[in-house]
Amino acid sequence: MRKLAVGIDIGGTNTVFGLVDENGELVAESSIRTDEYPNSLTHYLDDLSREILKLINNQEDIEIIGVGIGAPAANYHTGIIDNARNLPWIKTIHLQKEINKRLNLPVTITNDANAAAIGEMMYGGAQGMKNFTVITLGTGLGSGLVVNGELVYGDDGFAGELGHTIVLPNGRNCGCGRKGCLETYVSASGIRRTVFELMANKTENSVLRDYSFNSLNSKMITEAAINLDPIALEAYRYTGEILGKALANLVAMTSPEAIFLFGGLANADRLIFDSTHKYMEENMLFMYANKVKILPSKIKKNSAVLGASALAWKEQ
Amino acid sequence: MRKLAVGIDIGGTNTVFGLVDENGELVAESSIRTDEYPNSLTHYLDDLSREILKLINNQEDIEIIGVGIGAPAANYHTGIIDNARNLPWIKTIHLQKEINKRLNLPVTITNDANAAAIGEMMYGGAQGMKNFTVITLGTGLGSGLVVNGELVYGDDGFAGELGHTIVLPNGRNCGCGRKGCLETYVSASGIRRTVFELMANKTENSVLRDYSFNSLNSKMITEAAINLDPIALEAYRYTGEILGKALANLVAMTSPEAIFLFGGLANADRLIFDSTHKYMEENMLFMYANKVKILPSKIKKNSAVLGASALAWKEQ
Repeated sequence: MRKLAVGIDIGGTNTVFGLVDENGELVAESSIRTDEYPNSLTHYLDDLSREILKLINNQEDIEIIGVGIGAPAANYHTGIIDNARNLPWIKTIHLQKEINKRLNLPVTITNDANAAAIGEMMYGGAQGMKNFTVITLGTGLGSGLVVNGELVYGDDGFAGELGHTIVLPNGRNCGCGRKGCLETYVSASGIRRTVFELMANKTENSVLRDYSFNSLNSKMITEAAINLDPIALEAYRYTGEILGKALANLVAMTSPEAIFLFGGLANADRLIFDSTHKYMEENMLFMYANKVKILPSKIKKNSAVLGASALAWKEQ
Repeated sequence: MRKLAVGIDIGGTNTVFGLVDENGELVAESSIRTDEYPNSLTHYLDDLSREILKLINNQEDIEIIGVGIGAPAANYHTGIIDNARNLPWIKTIHLQKEINKRLNLPVTITNDANAAAIGEMMYGGAQGMKNFTVITLGTGLGSGLVVNGELVYGDDGFAGELGHTIVLPNGRNCGCGRKGCLETYVSASGIRRTVFELMANKTENSVLRDYSFNSLNSKMITEAAINLDPIALEAYRYTGEILGKALANLVAMTSPEAIFLFGGLANADRLIFDSTHKYMEENMLFMYANKVKILPSKIKKNSAVLGASALAWKEQ
């Protein structure tokens, strides 16, 4: 009998789920659209559970050890999602209880960055590490901190919001209502803001000058940088400077063995890694110099579902 | 037979040590002068060990469970002190091994801020807490982070250097060689620098204008503030502003239940607590608002020796 965990990644547009073994092999996968249920959470939960049961029943000779869910604003301690601004239901969702009721399996939930950290620890480059950090660079910036081999959930279950540490006093407006948060600089949306600031301040030609704010995405910026576009190159340098300085401060607190970068911007490879590493070392307290590795995530495929499933394995 | 732990606090001037029971009662205490041994570490270690044995042999019907040492730059993982700038010996000190050899007891070492955090957890206000931070406000700023009930030593044994996170880009020169570290603002020496900056920038009268930089200490600033001296009051407000903002960032990473302030500046009571709390809340990400307590340390006497002894109890 093969043991499998259910991993569920709930995003604002899609909900992806799959069955994963303890080596991180994805055995089966499916998805439903989150945004098709704007007015009926119950309907969504029913459909999601039914589709998961289908997936399970299609397998022979398996045992499901539990369910892990990565979702925005999901609280590990309470099992609740509260006011997740990316989801269509602006209210308290008793996610753990509702899924448990429908599937009759143990359910663990946390946010996607924490799930990514546990995935990295179970299946990826952090295997065997006791102290490391995963930074997810998507539309925003998420982080999962592992200390003494355990994820840092904090007293309230919401630790690891590195993206909302204020790095520049009176800096850019953030969606959280404050100013200067790390993710307003270091994220797909942050680097786009940087490009627009640079185009305003500088006179160099750039292919990026032909795009509107709404049409520009970080992939275009990466492509331009690869082609040595001066604005795009400077945008990556600056993004790495802000991230590197923030990581130097993070190291002074938790002193990790490695920091993994994950997601969209991390795919820009040396464009982001070189600059981040340079500024981290330049701003590092002497005792940590040249100790901390900055690495790409080793989970390249199905990472969100794998991370969520790792949560179930970890709780087993 | 009464079980006791040896606690040793090694400072640049004095080394204080004592025997402590598991409730934090100091049964016996003594000290030697660290600064009388500038050229002979061996002599110092011999004398220290002999004095500790005297203390032990003066007690009847006891069992010593171990030795805990708080010392600058002491590394929990390696048992070594490396280049402690406050100590008279500028070299590698195999402290754990040397004391173990002389006393034939298990020895654990860490820096004083980490020892203070373990002391708070065993004997003080953090009893029963799983996630909290202790900030020690002395000449510098130290910190001990507890996460999931365990002290955060980090991969290299040197985690918890909140005082050396850079809070103002291109800020004040720090002894570490960088600029803008938290402890250049928030510490006994930091508030003195703030007072001198304020006296330069402002025109208000102040009793502090009669003191030289070298003669002014933080106690005088506290007294002046209690007497409503405008420069001293503004210095405390500003110190609390910088600390409060740094704590808001700390909370976004580790989400502690409480933050304990300990040492010289913390004795200024509401002068520092009110301002710190106000700015922490003003700069806090919404999800952490009004959750995190800022508390005075509950260990009021013999705190350094008690903290060191707690280390031995914790390792038992």
